Amino acid sequence: MTATSTTSTVAEATAAAAAAAPALAATSDVDRARFLAAIADAIDAAAVELVSIAQRETHLPEARLTGEVARTTAQLRMFARVIVDGAYLEATIDHPNSEAVPPNPDLRRVLKPIGPVGVFSASNFPFAFSVAGGDTASALAVGCPVVVKAHSGHTELSRRTAEIVSAALEAAGAPAGSFSLVEGRQAGTDLVQDRNIKAVGFTGSLSGGRALFDLASSRPDPIPFYGELGSINPVVITEAAALAGAQKLATGLVGSFTLGVGQFCTKPGVVLFPAGTGFEDAVVAAFAEARGGEMLTERIAEAYPAGLQKLAAEGNVKVLAGEVDQDPDRPAEPVVLLTTAAAVAADPQTLLEECFGPVTLLVAYHDTAERDAALDVIEGSLTATLHAAEGEHLADLAERLAARAGRVLFGGWPTGVAVTWSQQHGGPWPATTSIHTSVGATAGRRFQRPVTYQDAPESVLPEALREQNTLGIWRRIDGELGRH
Amino acid sequence: MTATSTTSTVAEATAAAAAAAPALAATSDVDRARFLAAIADAIDAAAVELVSIAQRETHLPEARLTGEVARTTAQLRMFARVIVDGAYLEATIDHPNSEAVPPNPDLRRVLKPIGPVGVFSASNFPFAFSVAGGDTASALAVGCPVVVKAHSGHTELSRRTAEIVSAALEAAGAPAGSFSLVEGRQAGTDLVQDRNIKAVGFTGSLSGGRALFDLASSRPDPIPFYGELGSINPVVITEAAALAGAQKLATGLVGSFTLGVGQFCTKPGVVLFPAGTGFEDAVVAAFAEARGGEMLTERIAEAYPAGLQKLAAEGNVKVLAGEVDQDPDRPAEPVVLLTTAAAVAADPQTLLEECFGPVTLLVAYHDTAERDAALDVIEGSLTATLHAAEGEHLADLAERLAARAGRVLFGGWPTGVAVTWSQQHGGPWPATTSIHTSVGATAGRRFQRPVTYQDAPESVLPEALREQNTLGIWRRIDGELGRH
Repeated sequence: MTATSTTSTVAEATAAAAAAAPALAATSDVDRARFLAAIADAIDAAAVELVSIAQRETHLPEARLTGEVARTTAQLRMFARVIVDGAYLEATIDHPNSEAVPPNPDLRRVLKPIGPVGVFSASNFPFAFSVAGGDTASALAVGCPVVVKAHSGHTELSRRTAEIVSAALEAAGAPAGSFSLVEGRQAGTDLVQDRNIKAVGFTGSLSGGRALFDLASSRPDPIPFYGELGSINPVVITEAAALAGAQKLATGLVGSFTLGVGQFCTKPGVVLFPAGTGFEDAVVAAFAEARGGEMLTERIAEAYPAGLQKLAAEGNVKVLAGEVDQDPDRPAEPVVLLTTAAAVAADPQTLLEECFGPVTLLVAYHDTAERDAALDVIEGSLTATLHAAEGEHLADLAERLAARAGRVLFGGWPTGVAVTWSQQHGGPWPATTSIHTSVGATAGRRFQRPVTYQDAPESVLPEALREQNTLGIWRRIDGELGRH
Repeated sequence: MTATSTTSTVAEATAAAAAAAPALAATSDVDRARFLAAIADAIDAAAVELVSIAQRETHLPEARLTGEVARTTAQLRMFARVIVDGAYLEATIDHPNSEAVPPNPDLRRVLKPIGPVGVFSASNFPFAFSVAGGDTASALAVGCPVVVKAHSGHTELSRRTAEIVSAALEAAGAPAGSFSLVEGRQAGTDLVQDRNIKAVGFTGSLSGGRALFDLASSRPDPIPFYGELGSINPVVITEAAALAGAQKLATGLVGSFTLGVGQFCTKPGVVLFPAGTGFEDAVVAAFAEARGGEMLTERIAEAYPAGLQKLAAEGNVKVLAGEVDQDPDRPAEPVVLLTTAAAVAADPQTLLEECFGPVTLLVAYHDTAERDAALDVIEGSLTATLHAAEGEHLADLAERLAARAGRVLFGGWPTGVAVTWSQQHGGPWPATTSIHTSVGATAGRRFQRPVTYQDAPESVLPEALREQNTLGIWRRIDGELGRH
C-alpha cells in the first residue's frame, strides 16, 4: 500500500491508515498545511478534466461544477491556514500550584488526532462534500488518515480525484496509507464497523445515515458518527416583509429552491408566509422563470415524483405550480405546494418530510400564534431564514429559529454555505448527529481528542505545550489566553 | 414546580426544565456565575451536616468527605470564572467579504446551551460527581437546566443537597425548573429517553453506562450521552526506575490503589513492571501498611470478592498479597495479584477487566517488546502513568500511552484529579463515550451547540456577537483572536 493507491479493500485501507496514523500525527502543522496545499494545487491543475467527468456523471452544469472545484480547493487552503494559526490545538498550560489543597501538578492539555477517519462522499456535491471535500480536508488537517467511501453516483470522478489526492500526498511526503478510497455498499457498512476506524464523517440521506449511525453506536467500541442527514430549512416571512416586497421575495425563493435542481441540503423546503398578502400569487408569477433539470442519480430521480405525489395526496395540500405527475426518466420539473399552518401543526410527520428536488411547500399562517405553533413542530434543521421588515421586533422569533437550526439567516437564502471561521453547518437532529459542524474552520474539532500531560518532561511534550512558545500560537497559560 | 422542588417525577422535572431553558439561556454569564457561587456558598455553609449524612450512607471517612465538599464548591466557583472569562462561547465574527467568490455574508458564531441535561450521580464521589458535582456545575454554567438522577447509594444526601441547590438557585433568582432531582432505576431509563432531555452526563459502571448509552443512541432523536464508564489506568515502570527506587514506587502504588478503598475511577488497576528487579517484593513489603475498609454499597461489596476470585482462578494469575476469599459483609481488604505480560497479551479480555475495589494486578515483562505488546491490548483509559528514571528516552513510550488515555502522568499516581483549565478526564472507549472531558474548564463544551447568525441586525444578536465587545471577552474577528 502506497500513497498512490486509489481503491482497495476496506481491511487493507484501514490497516494502512492505522499504520500511518502515528507518523501523520507526528507531522508538523506546517507540513500538513503543505499537504493540503499540494492537494488543492493538484485539483486546480486538473479542474478541466475533473469537471468534464463530473458533468457526465452528475448532470450538473459546467459553471456550477467549476465553482464547486474552486470552493473545494479554497476549503483545503483554509484548513491549512487554520492549523498554522494553531488555536485549533487548544493548547492549555497550568503550572503547578503548591498552594492549592491538594497541590495541583503541572498539567498541559492539547487536542490530538483521533485516528483513522471514515468519510462518506455525498451525491450532490461531487467535489466539496466528496473525496477531497470538507470531511477529508478537516480530518487530514488535524492529522487523521482518511479512508473515503466513494459515492456510486460519481465513481469515475471519485477514482480520478483519489488518484490526484494520493499522488499529491505522496509527492509532498505524507506517510503512505494516509489516504485511500473504497467502493461499494458493503464497503460502507464494513468501514463504519472496522476496529481501526475511530470516527466517521457522513453527508447523505436520513435513512442511510441513521442506519450507519446505528452501526457506529452499536459497535463493541462505539465511535462518533458525524452525520449530516436531513433538513427542511424553514423560511419565515413576516407580514410586514410580505407587504413590503412579495415579488422580490418570491423571485429569491424560486431561485433558491430550484438551485442545483433542488438537490441542496440547505434548500428552503418549507416557507411560512402570512395569509392574505398575496405572497403565493407572487410565487406563481416568479415560477414562470423556474427551471428544472436532470437529477444526480436514477434513484434520486425516482424518489422525487414519488415524494411529490405523496405530499400532494394529502387533503390539505394543494399543487400551486408545476406538475406532480412527472416521468422520472425525464428532467425533473419544479413544483410549489401550498398548505396551512394549522395543517402542518396537526400532521408535521407527513407534511414536513424532506423531499429532495426542486419543490417547496408554502405554509399560510393567519396570526403569529399559528405561525409559531407550526414552527415548533419543525424538526432540527441546518438553517432557518427570517424575512422581516426594518424596525420589526425580532428577538423572540430569532431565538425560536435559533432553537431549531445551526444557522439563522436574516434576509437572503440558505443555499450557499460560505467556508469561513464562523460558519456552522449542523443543527439539532435530524439535521446532524452531533454538536459540531462539517463546514468551516472548526470542522476539524470532530476528529480531535484531548490529552493532558501531567508533570511531563519537556522532551516528551508536544511542541505546542513546551514552555517556550516556538510555534508562536495562541495558548491559555495559568488561565490567561495569549500568544505567550 | 418551583426551584425548591427536590424530587419529582421525570415528566414533571423535564417539562419544568424545558420551560426554564429559554429563560436560563437568556441569563447573563455574570448572573449564572452568581448562581454557581450561591450554590457553592450554601453547600459550604451546610458542609458539616452534609458530611455527616454522607459518612453514614457511603462509609467514607470524614476527612475525605470534607475534602470532597471543598473540591466540589471550588469546582462550582471555577466554572463561574470560566463563563465570566467568556472564551467558552467561542464567539467568532466574520464581516462580509464582497471580494470572495461568491461574496461572503456577515457570519457570527457562538455556542449556545443545548437544552435540559440529565445528570447521573456516581456512587463513589457523593459530592464531586453527584447532585452538585461537575456535570451539574458545567451544565448550569453554560445555561442548561439540569435534572439529576440520584444515586441509590446516598439517597438522603442527594435529597438534602438538592434542597440546598434548589433553595440557593431560587434565592439567587434562577428560573424555576432550572434544577430538579429524580430517584429510582426507572427514572434513570425514563430520563435518557425523555424528549425534553437534550444531553446526558453519566459516571458509573461499564454495564450500566453502556445500557443507557444504547438507549440514548436508539432514541428517535438520538442525543449525546457523555458517559465515564470504566478504566484500568495502566502504570508502566521502566527497568531504570525500578532499579532506582522500587521501595518508594511500591509505597506510592499501595497508597494509590487502596485510596478510598480502591473505589476511584482513576485507580491504577494494572502495573507493568520489569521482571527480575524485585519490584514485586517491594510491593509485598509496602503492603503491610495497606488498609481496606467498608465499601460504598452492598452491591459493590458483593462484586469485589467475586471479581477477585474470577481473576485469581486464572492459571496465570498468582495472589501476591492479601486474600481473595473475602466475606462481603465485612470490610474489604486489599489484594495484589501477579501475572505476566505474555499472559495479558494472550487473554486481555479476562485479565484486564476492571475490578472495583482495593486490588491491583502486577504484570511482569521481560523486555520492552513484551511490555509494548501488553500495553497495546489495554483498552482506552482515563489515565496512563509512566515511572522512568531521569535521562531515559521516553518520547515513543509517552506517545504509546497517550494513544490509549486522556491523561498521561510522568511520575506520581493517577488518583487525584485537579480541577483546572488543563484537566482532561476522559479517554478512548470504554473510559468515556466522547471526545470531551467531564472534569476541568472545558467540561461545559459537552452541553453547548453552535449557532451562526447570518446578516443579523444588532438587535437580535447575542451580546457576545455584537459589534462592540461590551463583555470584554476573547473573540475571533475576521480570523484574528483578540479581546476586541
